[in-house]
Amino acid sequence: MNRSAEVICVGTELLLGEVLNSNAQFLGQELARLGIPHFHQTVVGDNPTRIKGAIALACQRSQLLIFTGGLGPTPDDLTTETLADFFQIPLVNHPEILEDIARKFAQRNREPSPSNGKQAWLPELAQVLPNPIGSAPGMIWHPRPELTIFTFPGVPKEFQRMWQATAVPYLQSTGWVTAQIYSRVLRFWGIPESTLADQVAPLLALTNPTVAPYASKGQARLRISTRAASVETANQVIAPIEQQIRQICGVHCFGADEDTLESVVGELLQQRGETLAVAESCTGGGLGQRITSVSGSSTYFLGGVISYANAVKQDLLKVNATDLEQHGAVSAIVAEQMAAGVRSVLQSTWGVSITGIAGPDGGTETKPVGLVYIGLSGPQGTQSFEYQISSLRGRDWVRQMSTSHALDLLRRQMLVDQP
Amino acid sequence: MNRSAEVICVGTELLLGEVLNSNAQFLGQELARLGIPHFHQTVVGDNPTRIKGAIALACQRSQLLIFTGGLGPTPDDLTTETLADFFQIPLVNHPEILEDIARKFAQRNREPSPSNGKQAWLPELAQVLPNPIGSAPGMIWHPRPELTIFTFPGVPKEFQRMWQATAVPYLQSTGWVTAQIYSRVLRFWGIPESTLADQVAPLLALTNPTVAPYASKGQARLRISTRAASVETANQVIAPIEQQIRQICGVHCFGADEDTLESVVGELLQQRGETLAVAESCTGGGLGQRITSVSGSSTYFLGGVISYANAVKQDLLKVNATDLEQHGAVSAIVAEQMAAGVRSVLQSTWGVSITGIAGPDGGTETKPVGLVYIGLSGPQGTQSFEYQISSLRGRDWVRQMSTSHALDLLRRQMLVDQP
Repeated sequence: MNRSAEVICVGTELLLGEVLNSNAQFLGQELARLGIPHFHQTVVGDNPTRIKGAIALACQRSQLLIFTGGLGPTPDDLTTETLADFFQIPLVNHPEILEDIARKFAQRNREPSPSNGKQAWLPELAQVLPNPIGSAPGMIWHPRPELTIFTFPGVPKEFQRMWQATAVPYLQSTGWVTAQIYSRVLRFWGIPESTLADQVAPLLALTNPTVAPYASKGQARLRISTRAASVETANQVIAPIEQQIRQICGVHCFGADEDTLESVVGELLQQRGETLAVAESCTGGGLGQRITSVSGSSTYFLGGVISYANAVKQDLLKVNATDLEQHGAVSAIVAEQMAAGVRSVLQSTWGVSITGIAGPDGGTETKPVGLVYIGLSGPQGTQSFEYQISSLRGRDWVRQMSTSHALDLLRRQMLVDQP
Repeated sequence: MNRSAEVICVGTELLLGEVLNSNAQFLGQELARLGIPHFHQTVVGDNPTRIKGAIALACQRSQLLIFTGGLGPTPDDLTTETLADFFQIPLVNHPEILEDIARKFAQRNREPSPSNGKQAWLPELAQVLPNPIGSAPGMIWHPRPELTIFTFPGVPKEFQRMWQATAVPYLQSTGWVTAQIYSRVLRFWGIPESTLADQVAPLLALTNPTVAPYASKGQARLRISTRAASVETANQVIAPIEQQIRQICGVHCFGADEDTLESVVGELLQQRGETLAVAESCTGGGLGQRITSVSGSSTYFLGGVISYANAVKQDLLKVNATDLEQHGAVSAIVAEQMAAGVRSVLQSTWGVSITGIAGPDGGTETKPVGLVYIGLSGPQGTQSFEYQISSLRGRDWVRQMSTSHALDLLRRQMLVDQP
């Protein structure tokens, strides 16, 4: 069967480069995962003539057309109308769509505006593809035999939820998906991608499963992939290789798939029945924000102190004024006092602190931008760790790396300390 | 002059979603900035037939074709060969290209491989477009009158350097750049995109400047764009419309272009010489994190308390134990006591607090997921505000919206309170 899919992203904001077309990448990954051939991606603006041109071309060469964007309530959202017009099929009103929109707006104590009305019109015989999050629904439509059209809103979160909830099951139930590609992603911290690749070099040459290294935001990963008819058969191929990698890389591997440093730290704390408090300077709350991004973190996270000003370090964290003066706020000893201080004030098992120079300003000869001290205080005592994070990638990067290092330090410490 | 440009990105890795197509966004921004009309973007894999299909289509409708990708030394890099083949023009060897590659390799103590040889062949009469960083050169080529073709390597850093160094000057010197497009983006909080669109409906029909609404992360925006020969003339067209919009929308418009809620709040605090402290429960530090994402925030942000556990609310923020018991941690009175507490403990001009149910668990009949109270304490006293944020988009969304509401409340309060 030589059927193929084609992606058409609609939106002048894409042509103007105001929005990065992450939907096209997501669809590329998904279609590859589902084993659906996919040879063309097109971006057109909110212009009926050019949208029609893209439709005409795509339905000559592909049997599944996936549209993203142009489903909103405003006059420049034209995807649905233009599709109906191209295939000369009348639009019919779906009152249930407007009711659903009204329900969602009501939750936010709002009312649909007149312009939402147009979102309730779909071509005759098109199925509504519900949007669990936002207002714009999509559709699954067969304007002619052997041609399937999906429309999705352009908002990535909404589009991805709808894709997983309705499009994937539909494709699986209609013969589009034969064998899938299953992957397991192992996640690493504290080891560069190149070092990791060298350590597992022989495995990178495997053909089934394949093992591919990549990295983003300072986190190295290994993806183990195999093409299989079921998840069980896939696991039989993937599991032994995962085991080998874990043996080679040891503690550097902090988790797999959806794991994050904060979720792994949370699981360890929960298993040990221990609690955590944070003291943050240059990250300004970013560490607490990451820890509490894990649902249920209230069982082990007590809270913390954002000690941006030195007075707060002294008053709330009992940091020694003389040490602050002599060594400066960005120093090992202050980091240690912040960690020990927040641990004693909040009476937690662990106290973690971050103080550093996030930049772009504030750096000096002896204390350049990117210099960060992390304090770690626990049942076995208090230590600090110095990092020089590259300042080239800016303030956000320094802050992001700082919170990751802090979480990883706590993780490694819990692995060696017995509760 | 109705000439237009078209972008064709070549690479199977793009179709597989292994690479995010940032080149297309970069070109979109650049062509918009230069005022060069650009209506289509296409992605095709490393396949001669489909690359030819894309060429055939593009040169019917556009006079400037910009290719990225497919210039490397490996057999699957086919852009140059396929272009020459399509236009039936022979390839000629440019020894200087291979010499340049050899020079660059020598710097890294490497030697060109035989496969680099193919990179030295360009279609007859094509100009070499030198690559200052990498090995793959591009070209500027006129295969026929009124048709210009650029080729660039797919590596974003190399491509962008080459674009700025050679393509932009070429376009400016050959009449492609007559007038540039200048845009002004107005940013709104507290008003949905659809309501905003209704309020400024007449302006959306304008042709010069154009006014287009869009939204992301709950933030509605209006983009005012005009095509002009200079920024001064552009401002003459844009300013009066911006003024009209600001009159219509009033306080809902919090800023323009690069402004964020946190940067605008920061500017107001700085102007007033006032300070801010935060008390965060369900956001766990996210509000402080956003405030301190602004470089220089230490001049007005003192810090705060992450009071995730009730004990911290009582001990550090002096929240009344009986009120906590009677009304619960997620209540107006606790929000007010948190805000007033952090304000007095940190001795700041303003105290802002957030307490709510971020979910997905923890919701009840009377206090559903998404219920958030924001406390605001300042020189004029302390108040609280209740929000019911849609829980459909999940925990991160509830937290993100909470911090945005908190920043916006402070902003609006500062606009009415005189310092």
